[in-house]
Amino acid sequence: MQRAKSFKIRGAMNKMLTLTEEEKQRGVATISSGNHGSSVSYAASLLGIENAKVIVPETTPKSKVDKIRYFGADVMLMGSNYDEAHALGMKFIDEKGMTYIDAYYDDPKIYEGQGTIAIEILEQNPDIDTIVVPIGGGGLITGIAVAAKALKPGIRVIGVQTEACPAMIKAIEDKVFYEEYPVTGDTVCESLVGGVGKLSYELLPQFIDDIIEVKEKTIREAVRFMIKDEKIIAEGGSCTTVAAVMDFRERVGGKNIALVISGGNIDGDLMVKLMNESE
Amino acid sequence: MQRAKSFKIRGAMNKMLTLTEEEKQRGVATISSGNHGSSVSYAASLLGIENAKVIVPETTPKSKVDKIRYFGADVMLMGSNYDEAHALGMKFIDEKGMTYIDAYYDDPKIYEGQGTIAIEILEQNPDIDTIVVPIGGGGLITGIAVAAKALKPGIRVIGVQTEACPAMIKAIEDKVFYEEYPVTGDTVCESLVGGVGKLSYELLPQFIDDIIEVKEKTIREAVRFMIKDEKIIAEGGSCTTVAAVMDFRERVGGKNIALVISGGNIDGDLMVKLMNESE
Repeated sequence: MQRAKSFKIRGAMNKMLTLTEEEKQRGVATISSGNHGSSVSYAASLLGIENAKVIVPETTPKSKVDKIRYFGADVMLMGSNYDEAHALGMKFIDEKGMTYIDAYYDDPKIYEGQGTIAIEILEQNPDIDTIVVPIGGGGLITGIAVAAKALKPGIRVIGVQTEACPAMIKAIEDKVFYEEYPVTGDTVCESLVGGVGKLSYELLPQFIDDIIEVKEKTIREAVRFMIKDEKIIAEGGSCTTVAAVMDFRERVGGKNIALVISGGNIDGDLMVKLMNESE
Repeated sequence: MQRAKSFKIRGAMNKMLTLTEEEKQRGVATISSGNHGSSVSYAASLLGIENAKVIVPETTPKSKVDKIRYFGADVMLMGSNYDEAHALGMKFIDEKGMTYIDAYYDDPKIYEGQGTIAIEILEQNPDIDTIVVPIGGGGLITGIAVAAKALKPGIRVIGVQTEACPAMIKAIEDKVFYEEYPVTGDTVCESLVGGVGKLSYELLPQFIDDIIEVKEKTIREAVRFMIKDEKIIAEGGSCTTVAAVMDFRERVGGKNIALVISGGNIDGDLMVKLMNESE
């Protein structure tokens, strides 16, 4: 329900609120064509930071570029893929003396912003005993787990990953920091694919109670259920938490469960396709 | 975004908050298979009113009955159509000494509850100069118009009706209280069909600035636009306000416009059908 339809505004906003006037003058930048890019754009405009750049690969679809521009930032096209955009973008940001707004790698301010979700959940319902959270890079769940357990030590925090990219599950199993991780097969969880964040890899195992891997088939059902029955439009990655309850109710456990629905940026054509799938 | 997915909770709640303990003991009842019925059920359970009856025709689909029951009230099936249900229901309510919760006919408490929307709009953004509101029976717009003009006399309030059932437009034109009004052709605005409320018919002309009639074709486009672009699931009747801006931007006028999206109870199959229509 956030205006940019993603939780990422929380981390971006928390980071930017700590900047000095001089840093704001020099500007902010990030490298992201997705929810993080839109959120940095939106946070900068809310705070009146005029010099805001979002760097994306040259291959980024126009609809994504338009969305970032809509919230006010300049979009700069660099490199033919994300890795090239990242290398060229970091060089540009460094040369200009701008503040880089991290997506989920290791900036505590970003993680803390995402953690405000746990505060709001427990303010709204102190009886919540289990919070279920999607995992991509891990910034969201790490922020939530640290905050939730500080406020209510007995609370359980359960992560969910898609079978298409179980990077955090494997990172913890293998004790390897998988900064990148491949996607296997088709996925409707575009926002969850890729490797894990460094701070998340280091902190999460101490704060999490379980991580469940869910099937893409169930995630597709969950997207459809949320639209048709709950009347909530959520992206596939967010519906992993609903899928976890559908297929693993006992393993999720708890009596009063909060499912974090982290974003609503599902592609219109994909939504129609999923709505037409048989039930 | 109300839990029962409709503004009707406001009127029902406002009315029930005025009941004495004795009246609460005797119970509340209404006759409605739609948003009003669910809202009365939900409001009664929020207030701990144990004896709550919602009377519906025997032909009501099970999904609607289940929804009303879900919020806690008993559903009673009476008569083979709405008129019969109404006659039998009113007799039952009268015999039992229960409080009848009016949908939109002439109870000021119901109208006042709906009017809280105007208060919230102007609290959230005092610069709003135009409020656009769907009209079915007229309870919603009358409550909003009276409250809005009390708070900000210069504000404009614009009503919208579907071409399939322009009951209020004709009532005002013809100076006739159309307590019932026929539907012409197919409509996706199930929640808007029927005649006008008595109090609304008497009060509305003094408080409204314009009423716009919109095409069903545009309403269908508006439903699709809201889902695909705004990521909000709204029933056809609610999307009449979006349709008004699409087809009559100049006539709507204003600089800072609030569109009231009054309900989200669109049938799942209809939603899929509209999503599949070409653009």
